[in-house]
Amino acid sequence: MAGSTNGASPVPAGQRERFEWIVAGLLTDGPRESPIEGCGKVFIVGAGPGDPDLLTLKGKRCLEAADVVVYDALVDKRLLDLCRPGTTLIYAGKRDSRHSRPQEEINAILISEARAGRTVTRLKGGDPFIFGRGGEEALALAEARIAFEVVPGVSAGIAVPAYAGIPLTHRDVAAQVTFITGHECVKRDGSSIDWDSLARSPGTLVFFMGLKNLPHIAEALVAHSRSPETPTAVIQWGTTEHQVTVIGTLADIVERVRAAALEPPALVVVGEVVRLAEALHWFAEFEGARR
Amino acid sequence: MAGSTNGASPVPAGQRERFEWIVAGLLTDGPRESPIEGCGKVFIVGAGPGDPDLLTLKGKRCLEAADVVVYDALVDKRLLDLCRPGTTLIYAGKRDSRHSRPQEEINAILISEARAGRTVTRLKGGDPFIFGRGGEEALALAEARIAFEVVPGVSAGIAVPAYAGIPLTHRDVAAQVTFITGHECVKRDGSSIDWDSLARSPGTLVFFMGLKNLPHIAEALVAHSRSPETPTAVIQWGTTEHQVTVIGTLADIVERVRAAALEPPALVVVGEVVRLAEALHWFAEFEGARR
Repeated sequence: MAGSTNGASPVPAGQRERFEWIVAGLLTDGPRESPIEGCGKVFIVGAGPGDPDLLTLKGKRCLEAADVVVYDALVDKRLLDLCRPGTTLIYAGKRDSRHSRPQEEINAILISEARAGRTVTRLKGGDPFIFGRGGEEALALAEARIAFEVVPGVSAGIAVPAYAGIPLTHRDVAAQVTFITGHECVKRDGSSIDWDSLARSPGTLVFFMGLKNLPHIAEALVAHSRSPETPTAVIQWGTTEHQVTVIGTLADIVERVRAAALEPPALVVVGEVVRLAEALHWFAEFEGARR
Repeated sequence: MAGSTNGASPVPAGQRERFEWIVAGLLTDGPRESPIEGCGKVFIVGAGPGDPDLLTLKGKRCLEAADVVVYDALVDKRLLDLCRPGTTLIYAGKRDSRHSRPQEEINAILISEARAGRTVTRLKGGDPFIFGRGGEEALALAEARIAFEVVPGVSAGIAVPAYAGIPLTHRDVAAQVTFITGHECVKRDGSSIDWDSLARSPGTLVFFMGLKNLPHIAEALVAHSRSPETPTAVIQWGTTEHQVTVIGTLADIVERVRAAALEPPALVVVGEVVRLAEALHWFAEFEGARR
């Protein structure tokens, strides 16, 4: 494995024949500034949206090969069973950001473990480059001249609606889709959200972690002339056994979600494609009767 | 497997102990209108962005279990090696849409194979619900009362930029990202693209299949007041050994792409996050000297 001079290889020796084509994905160089010799490599891996079965083949092998796994709160703990016995597991923080490790501390752990010659897998919910701060971790590694690879994951923004029967794009209905982080929505002053262009967007809108800010999101979109009748879905714990979908309109979704007592993590989907959920709802929800 | 009364189970019998948790993903009900008995089930599977190693665990098992696989042009043929001997492989069409099977014909194949009691895997590039017409196929199956499941995949829109070292979102740089299909961009009259709101969007823009329409895309964004200095990347055959990235600005990207003689399939990324590619470029491009 180019760029990594230490740690177990993520390529299982006995399966080379069958998986030779798979191996290609690991035979890559490090970042352009040549990595320091003797250091381990860091794999920044997307764990997928919740359902552990949506992990990628490469992500699985990165877990199997790791000396150290640094994992986030929203990662399904059953994924950690894929690690070898003796793998060091480091929890990066609770969902509640008040009790998370600061990003700088996580960066420092990745760097020091790699400098000790260990193969490190940084396991993040969803995809690492979609609201996952994976870019910040990659930058810290590049600056420290630690070799790294990014292993994209199935984004919750796409898979959670799919499990609720909602295709984010659909011919003649939605030719574009926008992902927005709900955290930005609270910044009423100086927010980077341009509500006017969002409200005018002819496509689907997906707000990550939008539950807390749902009243503000619905109000702002209607205030900027999006129709209050726009179909809207809120999906709690999507792709897991705790998935619950609530469907309404921008006008009544806040009340419906309150009545259903949804809890984070939840995704908010706004747009005409939400209408398709009634026909395409294929995933059994344990409390699906709420829709 | 609820909802499927025929065909091999995608759950490998011998591995139940270890993968019991994985199995959960297949133990779901069919769509709400109860499926017709005796029919096989259809799995609408995202193959991922190109690198076959980005297939999901569930996607792999769907290929292993299928009696019939209906696959698209952009799917890596090495994935088909995962199928059992004797699996019927049906090619759904060339990339060039003039030689593709019409969507109605593909729908009819899925329905007739399932009605014959076979387990069908519909393998689509990227994610089936992001510009993949997966929603249309799911609707056809629901109307025909055929049980189906959607298996999301790693979207090319996220993974291709990641392999080029571009995080689509980044703190204080981009808090939103919009995916647009390049096919819509040609409809100069009656297009569903609102160029004004796109140009004003404070986030990253990703155009799928945007190479042919790159001149129009760059021109329209600048005409609607997006700065001509906005960093822009075009990535050909992303995540594969043929990946080539060309980086420029809205003002010069057309010329740079022409000089590099890029070919489809290619993804266009517009926004400040493109600047991060220089530091985060981790994936070796065979012709990477062109950047």
